[in-house]
Amino acid sequence: MPYVNIKITREGVTTDQKAELISGATDLLVRVLNKNPATTFVTIDEVELEDWGVGGLPVEQYRRKAAS
Amino acid sequence: MPYVNIKITREGVTTDQKAELISGATDLLVRVLNKNPATTFVTIDEVELEDWGVGGLPVEQYRRKAAS
Amino acid sequence: MPYVNIKITREGVTTDQKAELISGATDLLVRVLNKNPATTFVTIDEVELEDWGVGGLPVEQYRRKAAS
Amino acid sequence: MPYVNIKITREGVTTDQKAELISGATDLLVRVLNKNPATTFVTIDEVELEDWGVGGLPVEQYRRKAAS
Amino acid sequence: MPYVNIKITREGVTTDQKAELISGATDLLVRVLNKNPATTFVTIDEVELEDWGVGGLPVEQYRRKAAS
Amino acid sequence: MPYVNIKITREGVTTDQKAELISGATDLLVRVLNKNPATTFVTIDEVELEDWGVGGLPVEQYRRKAAS
Repeated sequence: MPYVNIKITREGVTTDQKAELISGATDLLVRVLNKNPATTFVTIDEVELEDWGVGGLPVEQYRRKAAS
Repeated sequence: MPYVNIKITREGVTTDQKAELISGATDLLVRVLNKNPATTFVTIDEVELEDWGVGGLPVEQYRRKAAS
Repeated sequence: MPYVNIKITREGVTTDQKAELISGATDLLVRVLNKNPATTFVTIDEVELEDWGVGGLPVEQYRRKAAS
Repeated sequence: MPYVNIKITREGVTTDQKAELISGATDLLVRVLNKNPATTFVTIDEVELEDWGVGGLPVEQYRRKAAS
Repeated sequence: MPYVNIKITREGVTTDQKAELISGATDLLVRVLNKNPATTFVTIDEVELEDWGVGGLPVEQYRRKAAS
Repeated sequence: MPYVNIKITREGVTTDQKAELISGATDLLVRVLNKNPATTFVTIDEVELEDWGVGGLPVEQYRRKAAS
């Protein structure tokens, strides 16, 4: 009975892409550990860009700096 | 000083129901482990239906399939 | 299909007490939100005392200070 | 490669304050554990007041009671 | 820069299986959302059987009941 | 009443360093958001190296590859 949580930045991910993440993560647990899909939960958290930091900066500033 | 996180699907849960979850979870920790309510935190995350998967499918598809 | 995570300090909690936390948290979701127990997960994390802080101090130092 | 998650109540925290939390948490990991900022993630969750409980009550009720 | 957390019961998962979970989860984020693997973190939590509940029971009791 | 969770790899972090993380994270919330330290919780999770992945690889393999 695995529980998978996927955190991604909120940047226009579609409902179809979310369904792919859910099926892909479930398949992974079935394939590697032979888990039962019926007791495998996947939750997705979309995190606002200003709420995600890397390199000590909010994501957008980090990307601008990395690109410059 | 326990910390309880409750994740549920976002489906019209009321403020009163949330207050019941908070008091119920706190009472549980007090009753079973004699914890101090003043240092017991409870947070509730409401997760969009498209962000919760079970059986490899988003919740709504899973329910339709289970009901069919 | 709720998911409940309970974090407590590691201080001799017994297997029976854990079972009480699991049944109590599940009952709470059933009672307040009419959730299905079969798709309600509860996980318990026991956190070492040196890994939990409150008031800016590890728990044990905090308790000694509060008691003095 | 640390991962820091900060949960706070949603009460008008500004983008600048979030950037300070991100840089401050990252600096802390660099200073104490010599971690590489480029592989240090920080995420911030703003939790609605009705979704955060302490003392068995939602935060606002708890504050009113504590102030009375 | 996704962050994936996988919680599974502690039941003899091998280091190789963990490596498969890590590569599989990372590949999923690359394939579906075109994320950069270098900024994709995966963490695995192995949860003791007595710390995981479903159906209001610790996992082992739940399995025995389901099998009977 | 913030809650901060810090996940780091398990690599010989000392009790004193953990206390510094706890005081530093608490001070950060006090300084930036004027939070009350008495209701600020910090928890630290030490994650085994084989349970942390980046770049699609367990940390140790990732480091060897990056260093080569």
